[in-house]
Amino acid sequence: MRFVSFTTPGDSRERPGILEADGVRSIRCESLRAYVALDPSARPARESGERLGLDAVEITAPIRPSRNVFCVGRNYLEHAKEGARAAGRELKLPEVPTFFTKTPSAIAGPDATVRFSSHVSNEYDFEAELAVVIGTRCKDVRERDAAGVVFGFTCLNDLTARDLQRAHLQWFKGKSLDDSCPIGPCIVSADEIGNAQALEIALRLNGATMQKSNTSQMIFPIARLIAELSKGMTLEPGDVIATGTPDGVGFARTPPQFLHDGDVVEVDIEGIGVLRNRIAIA
Amino acid sequence: MRFVSFTTPGDSRERPGILEADGVRSIRCESLRAYVALDPSARPARESGERLGLDAVEITAPIRPSRNVFCVGRNYLEHAKEGARAAGRELKLPEVPTFFTKTPSAIAGPDATVRFSSHVSNEYDFEAELAVVIGTRCKDVRERDAAGVVFGFTCLNDLTARDLQRAHLQWFKGKSLDDSCPIGPCIVSADEIGNAQALEIALRLNGATMQKSNTSQMIFPIARLIAELSKGMTLEPGDVIATGTPDGVGFARTPPQFLHDGDVVEVDIEGIGVLRNRIAIA
Repeated sequence: MRFVSFTTPGDSRERPGILEADGVRSIRCESLRAYVALDPSARPARESGERLGLDAVEITAPIRPSRNVFCVGRNYLEHAKEGARAAGRELKLPEVPTFFTKTPSAIAGPDATVRFSSHVSNEYDFEAELAVVIGTRCKDVRERDAAGVVFGFTCLNDLTARDLQRAHLQWFKGKSLDDSCPIGPCIVSADEIGNAQALEIALRLNGATMQKSNTSQMIFPIARLIAELSKGMTLEPGDVIATGTPDGVGFARTPPQFLHDGDVVEVDIEGIGVLRNRIAIA
Repeated sequence: MRFVSFTTPGDSRERPGILEADGVRSIRCESLRAYVALDPSARPARESGERLGLDAVEITAPIRPSRNVFCVGRNYLEHAKEGARAAGRELKLPEVPTFFTKTPSAIAGPDATVRFSSHVSNEYDFEAELAVVIGTRCKDVRERDAAGVVFGFTCLNDLTARDLQRAHLQWFKGKSLDDSCPIGPCIVSADEIGNAQALEIALRLNGATMQKSNTSQMIFPIARLIAELSKGMTLEPGDVIATGTPDGVGFARTPPQFLHDGDVVEVDIEGIGVLRNRIAIA
């Protein structure tokens, strides 16, 4: 199934729903996060809401996590290489994943205009990522059990102010500006996605392909990420884990290529869809 | 005023209140975060709840932020020095604050037992910190306006698994284990605290003083931290900013001194009180 959140012209509250061929069927829950937190056996009873045509709804960010969006740095070999080359340092691969976070208030929806300020940064950059949505409260998960705690998958653009990321040493500040975390357009359930480690992933800037890889290229696969992140730290239903970006980001190019006012960025992941955002820099 | 959250033997829901000489006066709001989010002019009308004796309540974590607990690394010169020495690297002072975050679900209350696992880390460490609670939605705050967005101050213990902090490169993983963020015992309003840059701050381990400094020793004072953090990122009422720890932490000692099962750690800040937690390591 493909899950979305939406508003209607008459009602600005976000509601959860299921994407169907000809429209959206609403879910009778206060939010998609509340639906994900239900016991799986209790979910079907909520899925029989009203049907709305696609032209009657506006699709918003599918889920709004209750805390940090968890992210992984340098999880594709070619991206780790380009990053080391751009920074003029030796490539050293980490033995465990490099976790950082974005603030959940940075979440933006599909087709939303991302609004940045030129007074804050001159180096806005893009990062296409597959995001995992957790479906079950869990802690100290073993790798072989990790698939069982996953609800589904979506696209995420880890928009980053490179100058701030560098100057502040830890990455948080450059990763958490308002609007810097577009996700969507939908969350595809784990059963429908099949093998999440074999998905084509691409990013297009104004139609030109900038990143192109496959989730098979992750250094730490999703099961390992969940095992490491949940070590000593409880994961909650609705938590979002961004699994890292492939090579091709703007700062590592020669010359570097950052985002400009009016740019359109698309994250395209096989089996999920296209997350498209226009960038406005004032 | 001194704000707390509490439960009663008959009611496990956390409620907000005001600490008085002889007890607690409850605030008629669903949480202290909801009270802080009120317009200041609307707060007094909520302050006339029931009076309870101190022996009739259990004091819990004063506030539960809705997203990341914002933290600052290396904000006291002597701590920056001891960290560089312990890591065998040259001391380089940052030009802007080093922000990282803890997950808000790591919050623990005053007098709560902190439960860690020896399977997750062998290097649990302490960090006494003055925490700022934001009272006003704000963005791009100027340093000279920063005092106006502060609601109050509390004690925070930035408990850290040093081996994880090191191995995972970015600090988040070693900083966000369950129970790793005790705060309290109360939030003291900004008007009552007076000059927040002139407070004695200490940490005692089983009664022995391990850290002893003054908030006058911060490299980046609170107004600068708020200005930098709010650059391009909206701050919300109830946000918590930990302002960094002085020297004396366990990992930088010779030999290093980490926490053990049964240890009692106290963060003591002038004008606020003592945040005391027992450590249980299983």
